[in-house]
Amino acid sequence: MRPMDAEQLRECGHRMVDFIADYYKSIEAFPVLSQVQPGYLKELLPDSAPNRPDTLDALFDDIPQKIVPGVTHWQSPNYFAYYPSNSSTAGFLGEMLSAAFNIVGFSWITSPAATELEVIVLDWFAKMLKLPSQFLSSGKAAIIFFTLGGGVIQATASEAVLVVLLAARDRILKKQGKKSLEKLVVYASDQTHSALQKACQIAGIFPENFRVVKADCSNSYAVAPETVSEAISIDLSSGLIPFFICATVGTTSSSAVDPLHKLGKIAQAHGMWFHIDAAYAGSACICPEYRHHLDGVEEADSFNMNAHKWFLTNFDCSLLWVKDRSYLIEALSTTPEYLKNKASQENSVVDFKDWQIPLGRRFRSLKLWMVLRLYGVENLQSYIRKHIQLAKHFEQLVLSDSRFEVVTPRNFSLVCFRLLPPTFEDDNGRNLNYSLMETSNSSGKIFISHTVLSGKFVLRFVVGAPLTEERHVDAAWKLLQDEASKLFESLYIINAGAH
Amino acid sequence: MRPMDAEQLRECGHRMVDFIADYYKSIEAFPVLSQVQPGYLKELLPDSAPNRPDTLDALFDDIPQKIVPGVTHWQSPNYFAYYPSNSSTAGFLGEMLSAAFNIVGFSWITSPAATELEVIVLDWFAKMLKLPSQFLSSGKAAIIFFTLGGGVIQATASEAVLVVLLAARDRILKKQGKKSLEKLVVYASDQTHSALQKACQIAGIFPENFRVVKADCSNSYAVAPETVSEAISIDLSSGLIPFFICATVGTTSSSAVDPLHKLGKIAQAHGMWFHIDAAYAGSACICPEYRHHLDGVEEADSFNMNAHKWFLTNFDCSLLWVKDRSYLIEALSTTPEYLKNKASQENSVVDFKDWQIPLGRRFRSLKLWMVLRLYGVENLQSYIRKHIQLAKHFEQLVLSDSRFEVVTPRNFSLVCFRLLPPTFEDDNGRNLNYSLMETSNSSGKIFISHTVLSGKFVLRFVVGAPLTEERHVDAAWKLLQDEASKLFESLYIINAGAH
Repeated sequence: MRPMDAEQLRECGHRMVDFIADYYKSIEAFPVLSQVQPGYLKELLPDSAPNRPDTLDALFDDIPQKIVPGVTHWQSPNYFAYYPSNSSTAGFLGEMLSAAFNIVGFSWITSPAATELEVIVLDWFAKMLKLPSQFLSSGKAAIIFFTLGGGVIQATASEAVLVVLLAARDRILKKQGKKSLEKLVVYASDQTHSALQKACQIAGIFPENFRVVKADCSNSYAVAPETVSEAISIDLSSGLIPFFICATVGTTSSSAVDPLHKLGKIAQAHGMWFHIDAAYAGSACICPEYRHHLDGVEEADSFNMNAHKWFLTNFDCSLLWVKDRSYLIEALSTTPEYLKNKASQENSVVDFKDWQIPLGRRFRSLKLWMVLRLYGVENLQSYIRKHIQLAKHFEQLVLSDSRFEVVTPRNFSLVCFRLLPPTFEDDNGRNLNYSLMETSNSSGKIFISHTVLSGKFVLRFVVGAPLTEERHVDAAWKLLQDEASKLFESLYIINAGAH
Repeated sequence: MRPMDAEQLRECGHRMVDFIADYYKSIEAFPVLSQVQPGYLKELLPDSAPNRPDTLDALFDDIPQKIVPGVTHWQSPNYFAYYPSNSSTAGFLGEMLSAAFNIVGFSWITSPAATELEVIVLDWFAKMLKLPSQFLSSGKAAIIFFTLGGGVIQATASEAVLVVLLAARDRILKKQGKKSLEKLVVYASDQTHSALQKACQIAGIFPENFRVVKADCSNSYAVAPETVSEAISIDLSSGLIPFFICATVGTTSSSAVDPLHKLGKIAQAHGMWFHIDAAYAGSACICPEYRHHLDGVEEADSFNMNAHKWFLTNFDCSLLWVKDRSYLIEALSTTPEYLKNKASQENSVVDFKDWQIPLGRRFRSLKLWMVLRLYGVENLQSYIRKHIQLAKHFEQLVLSDSRFEVVTPRNFSLVCFRLLPPTFEDDNGRNLNYSLMETSNSSGKIFISHTVLSGKFVLRFVVGAPLTEERHVDAAWKLLQDEASKLFESLYIINAGAH
């Protein structure tokens, strides 16, 4: 066994590159949503690990035969579900190089390039988004005290919101005493990603103190700041301690944009932490014409967007900026003897282990650096614009068919739509739209997902896979129309029979 | 811009494979510990992202010139610091394929193969380690209630201990009421990884209730179970609630092994959660002659080892098994409408999002599957044995030079040693050994790290990089001897001058 022989790596690596390039070449041939049944793989693989090595040939036989059928093809041009998870040649090269170095970059010393490149590309990105200068690694947050901001790559937006919630929790508990935990209140709209709820569970926020403010169609599912204000007043008068507001730019269900400026002012008035989750829509804000969605970010304590969603950077790569890093470090730092080193002790470097949950960390800045370098800002803007254009096109198609409705105004590349239920259906179209989704997805030709808005079962069509062209959107729409026709046909037959 | 063009991917991918194979071929030529100064990269890179794309050639010029000098080469055969982070051809191929699919496997439906392969390889691994059957995905934990165990891949051991601490916390709080948080007590030795302290901070355990039990040289830095028992009794009589014990197999400082069986019985007697952290040494336990270090694992509620340390599986890949998955799920599950799907609702599948902190997850089981298949259990055992043999060899070398001492008995592939201080030094050899480490590391020829045991500044020499051979160990020892001679020489000159 020569597990790290350079020539063996070369030979196997080339073979894998060809396999992957061929996969992308033929990606449209696979059902985009995997059609296997639960437990399929157990039937195909042995019960225990082999004692003796298998050949590379055996492995390359098994991948297409046993693994690929169980893959849902997120990179397929016919993938329109959830939000995208972009891959690209640049992102892929970055993953390769990162896997090759295979460092564990907890402290600066464990690979200075990993920490320093991360600081640099996060500054680049902050400038692309025109974030306030306090979010830069050289930024100053306060006027009196000298504090530093900066960006860091988290694995996911869930971890980003968790670490800032912990920073905010410990900041307020330091003032109020740790027994005040039971009084801490978090505010967010009911359209906020479930990651916040999970973060609250983890941080020990009492469930009854997670204030979920209803957002409805009157504001296109953005939260009304007055409602947040009122909730805070009530809580204050009950002796509770409001300490955290989370706003979203591009909610998961419908891409709604919360009013950042007003929410930020409310947070400020009460000394609360203000976090902005722009996981999906943040990418669009590198285009001047969409940047206004971030107006008000200057009020935020922390801001997050996922380069791994819609920015051609392979998963995982979630970018988090804070105005004052000291709160993160205070909440998350531990320095046992075996991790001490001169550079860290002299405080001359950043140790990102103290900005995140895990100790170890991959060299993730490489892939983001490669995406920015190999594509350039202008191309990346065009890429975003093209997807939004395709979503507009899909929206027009939906509007042109009176059997359908567009449920909420489209902001970015997500269209929320549904089939209008016939009057004799009493579930507000739930079954009908569920069936439309299931039959379309089980055709293997497209993959879309759903949500519920104001009690309506709504279909979500997101443009964002790197290979999607107009023809894919058109074909998807044709499939949806055809399936809808079939559904209506059987529905009217059944209904006619029932009368 | 064709960010996902198959032929472009092929061309660039082949070029990157050659770059990486060449890197491994010449890896001994680089200083193993990066010798750059803080801030080096800022001088070399522009202030903002390029508007127009750079060429691939420019990128391939920059990587060796600007990035590689800032890399600490964890895969170098001369890397003996911390614990290893193994790469291998199989692990690398797995990372490539995972990056190519680039799925976000939060639920079964998002790629059934990702979830199912993970369940299968974790079962394989549990069998290799001879874990009790309750840890298998089909295992039953309790006699009366039907419960299921199983394994899951976490990113890091830090996240593994955090999720089980949260599961244990919420299990006890459900009984005692959530206001009892302030009474919950965690027990572990002072040799336990700092990840546990961080997990306690995150989970809101009161700092004064994190019971750090002293372990000393009389037990080779394993914790004495009686001390834990006594601490629990005292806490119970003060009205506190002991709820979590963490034992370690292969501590970070010195590879000590806590007495699992006795600690497990104590935990059981008090209805506490018992977690075992075998992050590093777990790999050795696939060899029958080292398996006894896991005796007592049958008492544990959860068990963790890192395949990304010493098992040729690229970072990150931390394996966690639990006997009863329901506590994890209860603590970490959220199911918003937009993630609901038939398979999940029917409870016919595992959704690993509910076993971990983040929502999204990479297809990490691929690399572990490839390592197991392409190397086979027997080869993997030989690989572990070879490293332990090399560590024994190093230990003999240290013992043969009377200027040095081996500080604690060697268990696996870590040797803890130091230069004995001359009698006229009054810092117990701290400066001397610190200097030996710094001069050796700054030569670029080896990288070792340190710890402190019973007040002694101790050097850590770990064999574990995939390319390390006897000649590297011999050369490292020669360097250490030479540097020691130089240090003593200058020390005696200074001392003679001072008198």
